[in-house]
Amino acid sequence: MAQTSTVHAPQLQGLIDAVGAQNVVTNPATIDNYRWDRANDPSAGTPVAVVRATSSEDVQATIRFAAAHGMPVVTRGAGSGLSGGSSAVDGGIVVSMENMRDISIDPQTRTAVVQSGAFNAEVKAAAAEHGLWYPPDPSSFEFCSIGGNVATNAGGLCCVKYGVTADYVLGMKVVLADGREVNLGGSRLKDVAGLNLTQLFVGSEGTLGVITEVTLRLVPAQRPPTTLVATFATLDDSTKAVLAIASSMRPSMLEFMDNATINAVEDATGMELDRDAAAMLIIQSDEPAEYAAREIEMMEASCHQHGATDVFHASDVEEAEAIIVARRMAIPAVEQKGTILLEDVGVPLPRLGDLVRGVQQISQDRDVTIAVIAHAGDGNTHPLLVFDPMDDEQKQRAHLAYGDVMELAVRLGGTITGEHGVGRLKRPWLVDSIGEDALELNNRIKSALDPHNILNPGAVYDPAGLTADE
Amino acid sequence: MAQTSTVHAPQLQGLIDAVGAQNVVTNPATIDNYRWDRANDPSAGTPVAVVRATSSEDVQATIRFAAAHGMPVVTRGAGSGLSGGSSAVDGGIVVSMENMRDISIDPQTRTAVVQSGAFNAEVKAAAAEHGLWYPPDPSSFEFCSIGGNVATNAGGLCCVKYGVTADYVLGMKVVLADGREVNLGGSRLKDVAGLNLTQLFVGSEGTLGVITEVTLRLVPAQRPPTTLVATFATLDDSTKAVLAIASSMRPSMLEFMDNATINAVEDATGMELDRDAAAMLIIQSDEPAEYAAREIEMMEASCHQHGATDVFHASDVEEAEAIIVARRMAIPAVEQKGTILLEDVGVPLPRLGDLVRGVQQISQDRDVTIAVIAHAGDGNTHPLLVFDPMDDEQKQRAHLAYGDVMELAVRLGGTITGEHGVGRLKRPWLVDSIGEDALELNNRIKSALDPHNILNPGAVYDPAGLTADE
Repeated sequence: MAQTSTVHAPQLQGLIDAVGAQNVVTNPATIDNYRWDRANDPSAGTPVAVVRATSSEDVQATIRFAAAHGMPVVTRGAGSGLSGGSSAVDGGIVVSMENMRDISIDPQTRTAVVQSGAFNAEVKAAAAEHGLWYPPDPSSFEFCSIGGNVATNAGGLCCVKYGVTADYVLGMKVVLADGREVNLGGSRLKDVAGLNLTQLFVGSEGTLGVITEVTLRLVPAQRPPTTLVATFATLDDSTKAVLAIASSMRPSMLEFMDNATINAVEDATGMELDRDAAAMLIIQSDEPAEYAAREIEMMEASCHQHGATDVFHASDVEEAEAIIVARRMAIPAVEQKGTILLEDVGVPLPRLGDLVRGVQQISQDRDVTIAVIAHAGDGNTHPLLVFDPMDDEQKQRAHLAYGDVMELAVRLGGTITGEHGVGRLKRPWLVDSIGEDALELNNRIKSALDPHNILNPGAVYDPAGLTADE
Repeated sequence: MAQTSTVHAPQLQGLIDAVGAQNVVTNPATIDNYRWDRANDPSAGTPVAVVRATSSEDVQATIRFAAAHGMPVVTRGAGSGLSGGSSAVDGGIVVSMENMRDISIDPQTRTAVVQSGAFNAEVKAAAAEHGLWYPPDPSSFEFCSIGGNVATNAGGLCCVKYGVTADYVLGMKVVLADGREVNLGGSRLKDVAGLNLTQLFVGSEGTLGVITEVTLRLVPAQRPPTTLVATFATLDDSTKAVLAIASSMRPSMLEFMDNATINAVEDATGMELDRDAAAMLIIQSDEPAEYAAREIEMMEASCHQHGATDVFHASDVEEAEAIIVARRMAIPAVEQKGTILLEDVGVPLPRLGDLVRGVQQISQDRDVTIAVIAHAGDGNTHPLLVFDPMDDEQKQRAHLAYGDVMELAVRLGGTITGEHGVGRLKRPWLVDSIGEDALELNNRIKSALDPHNILNPGAVYDPAGLTADE
């Protein structure tokens, strides 16, 4: 087990010697900026140092130092995580990847080799210079790192057709708990030599190693999508339309906003959304022109068939973009109403209606405002639980509702997290989501790869479930 | 470590009691049918029993029996493996999945739940009844099992556009080394709760558990593809055309046959292939009609630009199908020339020319006929080394050439196996392919999940590298 560190400031000299004083932050005011990610985990600790790594060697030296002193190491990309996967730990070291952002594109193999601190948007831009596309598009793509995307197996809006981050990771360099760096996979499209360790590290949330570089698969540029917006008078109508469309067509986007979200976005933008609608769907097709027109026509018919009150086509690229921006700003818009607890539960698509209805019931039962946005096409919803941070009683009700929503998703055959990760916030619910036997397999692999539990201790795994090696 | 079993026939009674006498084969003549897969591994052993499992419970009972007696367990799908991944082990038990073949399709979630003994072709057919498609298409799709496909992460002809088996596996049931059955993943399209154990088991070749059921992602039926065939006077011209097409367009098939293969297929079929061509490419586009026409036109121009001697379009579906059948029968056609050692090496696409040229050089240096077929679009080649089994000296040269080809691929930044697996035949080369550190990680995970090494011992892992738990 990781122990609370007994390293005092003077002993950090070994670390400073190894990675250079300019890369080690010990100033408490600056360190404070590295304690939380966007989950604002109330239990985040205070690290003794932040290493702003500039190379794999810096990361290796840091891990070796930490291993020698039994110190926890938390890896941090851009700090945009939503489950507390990069909350700092008392007495530990935060390894920040913010200064490792090289990107190189190979158009012949259609791959990108990217240091993990590079932003998702930077990878997209570099690929676009070669007429290529890196599809994964978390809503935070402009300010989240590729390393964080890989560590959480981030999703986004285009997943419904183009899959998640994992589908684009061909290889990586990862620094292990003993400081060795290992190369996994590479720019080969097919490779079955040994276990698929690359995919094991995708989504491992910094608990098995520190990913320093990834090799990503790129695809030809997306065709300009056609955009459709439909509003519905009832939640049921909207989720039925989602199921009908997603199970018979191939939308490149199929997003959902409920009434509370529509109103929050309208408050923030004044773009004349229908404040009375129970739900709104944003649908895109990116098939070749003539085919897309036919597909959009079928999608429109499906919306009407399921009782849409209004259906309209974006008249041009600008209008379409404005609608997508509205969707992407749903979280900040709802945040203006209070402090939020952000959920990330998913269910098999036919249970989407049950999930949305159940969340509404929880909202009533707990007397907590819950706004729901969803990557509806793949059954992944983000209920946003809003509370007044000054009202302790309300805050407590919101936290109870947070658990209720996860338990509901599990009852419906779903997951407690579709794309944000377990981190520290959702750890108590992991066993219900995957079951005791699968959790025990997780623990065995964690213990095999990080026997002293120095990598992101407290995230994903309950230390009590791990086999100590010391 | 697994010990050579000390179980004698009378002691099998416990197994027979557990799974039923009708499901346990002990007759030596019948057992003989379960010793080899298509790799014809000369070191395949003789098991003491074959269990034809009819349920997960049968598999669990068998593993528990084997664990209690320290007996090796080798899982067998349809026996179509090409790397000796299901060679039987002396004194062990073979678990055959041939009687577990249930398939159920859920059109709403576009998923199939399939017992692992079902054939790939049976899954495709069941999906097609609902207008859906299960893309992975190993050449053996008519006689290989889904369980084997998942265990080896099998590829095929459509991978160049549609990816490999792993891309379609959403979940599974797997019986662990201690006899517990665990559910991993499911029909959720996004799920990041805990490590991605589903993907860890994909490609694990029966060494971590026995997969009894898988949940597969289906996609809408493929559009009818347009087919182009191009012949080239030199290998270089053909591989340059491959690189040009694969790096700028999205063929749904991009297959390669060299002169030796063309002639073997022509001998077998008399379909008037060009016996003088150095290479032949078979190219398909399955985009919507008008778009496909444009894409095929660009592909044709690319072939001409790279010196194609002849380019022709399949005139109709029948002619296209005949061409694909010719490609699929390449292995049996070459097998008529002698015994073959089947390679499965892959390289990053820009090195394909170097690989094909290097194989030609090995053929000359070792004086061994090598026919090359390739899923060229993803850099995965199958050099077929032909030898006279009665000529010991030639056989020895062929085995040396087999190693040479893998070493060449590794030197070119490639892999020793793109889609067949390591099995027993390629184990000695695994360390060169993935490196000592990655191999050590493999060993740690194997030891964590199968501490007594009873699951497929001798495949993939060198027992000497594993940490014994007893």
